[in-house]
Amino acid sequence: MDTHQTSLSPQSPTHAQRLDRLAELAVRVGLNLAPGQELVMTAPVEALPLARRITEQAYRAGASLVTTILGDDEMALARYRHASEDSFDTAPGWLFDGMAEAFRRGAARLAIVGDNPTLLAGEDAERVARANRARSIAYRPALELITATAINWSLVASATPAWAVTVFPDLPAEAALARLWDAIFAASRVDEADPVGAWAAHNARLMEKRTMLNARRYAALRFRGPGTDLTVGLADGHAWMGGLSTAKNGITGNPNIPTEEVFTTPHRTVTEGVVSATKPLSYQGTLIRDIRVRFEAGRITEAQASTGQAVLERMIGTDEGARMLGEVALVPNSNPISRSGLLFFNTLFDENAASHIALGQAYSKCFLDQNLDAAALDAAGANRSLIHVDWMIGSAETDVDGIDATGIAEPLMRAGEWVK
Amino acid sequence: MDTHQTSLSPQSPTHAQRLDRLAELAVRVGLNLAPGQELVMTAPVEALPLARRITEQAYRAGASLVTTILGDDEMALARYRHASEDSFDTAPGWLFDGMAEAFRRGAARLAIVGDNPTLLAGEDAERVARANRARSIAYRPALELITATAINWSLVASATPAWAVTVFPDLPAEAALARLWDAIFAASRVDEADPVGAWAAHNARLMEKRTMLNARRYAALRFRGPGTDLTVGLADGHAWMGGLSTAKNGITGNPNIPTEEVFTTPHRTVTEGVVSATKPLSYQGTLIRDIRVRFEAGRITEAQASTGQAVLERMIGTDEGARMLGEVALVPNSNPISRSGLLFFNTLFDENAASHIALGQAYSKCFLDQNLDAAALDAAGANRSLIHVDWMIGSAETDVDGIDATGIAEPLMRAGEWVK
Ligand SMILES: [Zn+2]
Ligand SMILES: [Zn+2]
Ligand SMILES: [Zn+2]
Ligand SMILES: [Zn+2]
Repeated sequence: MDTHQTSLSPQSPTHAQRLDRLAELAVRVGLNLAPGQELVMTAPVEALPLARRITEQAYRAGASLVTTILGDDEMALARYRHASEDSFDTAPGWLFDGMAEAFRRGAARLAIVGDNPTLLAGEDAERVARANRARSIAYRPALELITATAINWSLVASATPAWAVTVFPDLPAEAALARLWDAIFAASRVDEADPVGAWAAHNARLMEKRTMLNARRYAALRFRGPGTDLTVGLADGHAWMGGLSTAKNGITGNPNIPTEEVFTTPHRTVTEGVVSATKPLSYQGTLIRDIRVRFEAGRITEAQASTGQAVLERMIGTDEGARMLGEVALVPNSNPISRSGLLFFNTLFDENAASHIALGQAYSKCFLDQNLDAAALDAAGANRSLIHVDWMIGSAETDVDGIDATGIAEPLMRAGEWVK
Repeated sequence: MDTHQTSLSPQSPTHAQRLDRLAELAVRVGLNLAPGQELVMTAPVEALPLARRITEQAYRAGASLVTTILGDDEMALARYRHASEDSFDTAPGWLFDGMAEAFRRGAARLAIVGDNPTLLAGEDAERVARANRARSIAYRPALELITATAINWSLVASATPAWAVTVFPDLPAEAALARLWDAIFAASRVDEADPVGAWAAHNARLMEKRTMLNARRYAALRFRGPGTDLTVGLADGHAWMGGLSTAKNGITGNPNIPTEEVFTTPHRTVTEGVVSATKPLSYQGTLIRDIRVRFEAGRITEAQASTGQAVLERMIGTDEGARMLGEVALVPNSNPISRSGLLFFNTLFDENAASHIALGQAYSKCFLDQNLDAAALDAAGANRSLIHVDWMIGSAETDVDGIDATGIAEPLMRAGEWVK
C-alpha cells in the first residue's frame, strides 16, 4: 500500500483533528483529569493551538479552571542580551511558589514541551548556568510535589518552528514543521484507529515488564556496548515503574506522552565503570555530543564530550548529587520512536529511543514502599539534586544483564531487545 | 500640510520604532523602573510584539527579571462554552497570591491592555458575573497593593485585532488595526519629537490643576448637563491626584499611559442627584449604553440603561460598595483623546475623554494623609468594593462647580473646559 496515498485519503484526519486527538490523550490518558480538578498548564507561545485544544478538552472533562502560563523564547533571549550582569541569580519564585500552592490545593499539571533545543547555545554559559541554578532552586518546592507524584501530571509535545528546523535541518521551514508534527502524532499514538485503546494496550505491555523486573529483585544492571561497560547498582527496595502511574491523590495517568521506558532508582554510591552516550544530549539550549563518563563508587570522576564539554562540566557541578545517578531505564531498540531514526533533541522523545540513565534527582515513587521519608530514601540510596538529566546509553549494540544479590548475571536485553 | 504625506515621509518612524518608543515610555515614564527591580507583566497574547519590546526595555533599564503572564481570549471563551455549571466560582488564587507576593518582594507591575470589548457579550451573564466575582475576590490581595500604590505600576495599551474592529467597525481588519495603533500612539504621545519630554510637560500641567484643587478644599462638586444634575460630596481630607504618582516604595511614575485626568475620592454617603453617562460603558465584555442613575445619600437607588441593563444591575449588585462612588475625575473636553472623537471601548482611553465617576473601590492614596488605616479611610468616607468601574459623565455641554464647606459654588468648568 502506498502510504502517501493513504495519508491523502478522505479518511485521513486533518491536522485540526489530530491536534484534538492529542489534546484528548493529554487530558484523558496523560492526566486522567478528575471532574472538578483545576489544571495548571505551561506551554511555549508557539504551542497556543494545542494549548487551546487541551483547554477545551479539559473543560469538557470537568476541569474547574484551566490556567496556562505561556513562555516566549524571544523574551528569554532578551534577558541574556540586555540584562545587567548582576541579575542572573534571580528567578520567579513567586510564580513557582504559586504553582506549588495550586498543586497542594489539588491542581493537576500539564506541560506542553516544544523548546528550541539550541535557543541558548550562543549565550554566555556562565549566565545560563546561574539563571538555571536560580530557577531550579526556586522551582524546587513545586518540582518535589511532581517528582513525589503528589498530583497527576503529564508532558505532551507540540511541534514548534525552531524545534522543527533543528530536527529537519535540510527541509524548508514549513515542511520541517509538518514532518515534526507527523513524528509527534505517530510517537503519541494519535494516528491509531482508537488512540485511547492503543494506549491501554501499550500500558499493559509496559506493566508486564515492570512486573517481571520487580519480581527479580536485581541488585544491579550491567550495560555493555561500544565504549560502555557500566554496572549500575539499584537502590534497596527499588520498584520498577513505567507507563501508568498512580499519584498520591489517587489518580492514575501517563506522566509522559509518549513513553516507552520502564525505569527505577539506582543506588547513588554503587555505580562503577565507563559509559558512552549513544545520542547527543540537548541540555538547556546546548547540544552535548559524544559524552563519555567514568563512575567510581557512584560518582562521576571523569567526564568528556566532543562538543559542549564546558556545559557538561557545569551541569555535573550544579551540586553534589548532579554527578550521581537518579534513574536507570530500559527501552527496547525496536520501539516506534527508535525506529523513526530521528534525533528529536528533546528528552521526552529521545529517552524513549534507547535505554538511559539520568544524573541527579531520583523519583521517590520508584520504591516498593511509597511512603519513605527523606532519611529512609537517603538510606536506601536515592539520590538528591537540583537537576534530573536523562541521557541515552542504549543502542542496537547494547547488551544488558540483571545481576542478583549473589552476583549471578542473567541476560535481560541482547542487541538492544528484550530477551523475553 | 497633508498629514497623509507626512506619515509617509522618510522621517516618519516605522511601526517597530513607534512600538519601541511606547515600550520605552512604559518602562521609563510609566513605571520609572528601578535598577534591580523585578517586573511582573500581564498582556493579551496578541500584544506579544509590544510585550517583547517592553521586556527588552525593562532589561536595558536594569530589571532583575521580567515575568510575563499572557492571556488568551479563546481559552477564556472555552471556559464559558465547555466548563461545567458548578465550576464558575473558581479563580486562580494561587497565581494572584503569587503576584501579591512578588509585589511584597518589591516587583513593579505593568499591564498591557488590549481586551476585546465584546468578548463575553454572547455568554451567559450569570456565569460571567460568578467568574468575575470569584476572580475579584482572589485578586483582592494583589489589587490592594496596587490601589494603595505600595509599588510602582502602570497600564499601557496594545492594539489587538478584535479591539480594532470594535472601534472601527466599517474598516477592513488590517486598516482598523493600523488606525487603532495610530490612535494609541497619538494618545500616548509617542509621535511627539521627544516623547519623554512631552510627558514631563504634560505631567507639569496636570500638577498645576491638582495644586489648585487641593488648595480650594471643596466639600463637593456639582455636575450639570443634559440629563445630569449631580452633587458629589468629597471625602474628608481628600487629595487630588493625576499624572505622576509616588508609590510607597518611593518610585514616581505615571500609572496610566495615556492619562488626562485629575481625580480624587468622593465621600461615599454624600452624593445626591441624577446623572446620565455621556459614553457607552464597556464592562467585562458587554456594552452598557445610556446609563442613567439616581443617587440618594451616596447610594444608587435607580439604575437604567438602554442596553445591558441586566449587566449594569449585576455590576452594582456585586457588593454593598458597588453602588457607591470611589472616584470622581475632571477632564477637559479639549484634550487629544476627546478630540479624536473615537469611542475606544476601553476605560484607559475613554475615561480620559471626559470627566467621570467610578463606582466601587476608592484609591486610598487620594488623601492628604497617605497613611490612613482602614478604619480612618472608612471614617473619611472612602468606599470599599470588589469593583472599580469608571464611567463618563462629562461632555462639551457639562458645567462643573466647586462647592465649599459653606455651600458657596464657584465655576470650575464651563462647556467642558477649565474656567481658568
Ligand atoms: Zn527515563
Ligand atoms: Zn528521567
Ligand atoms: Zn479616573
Ligand atoms: Zn478609575
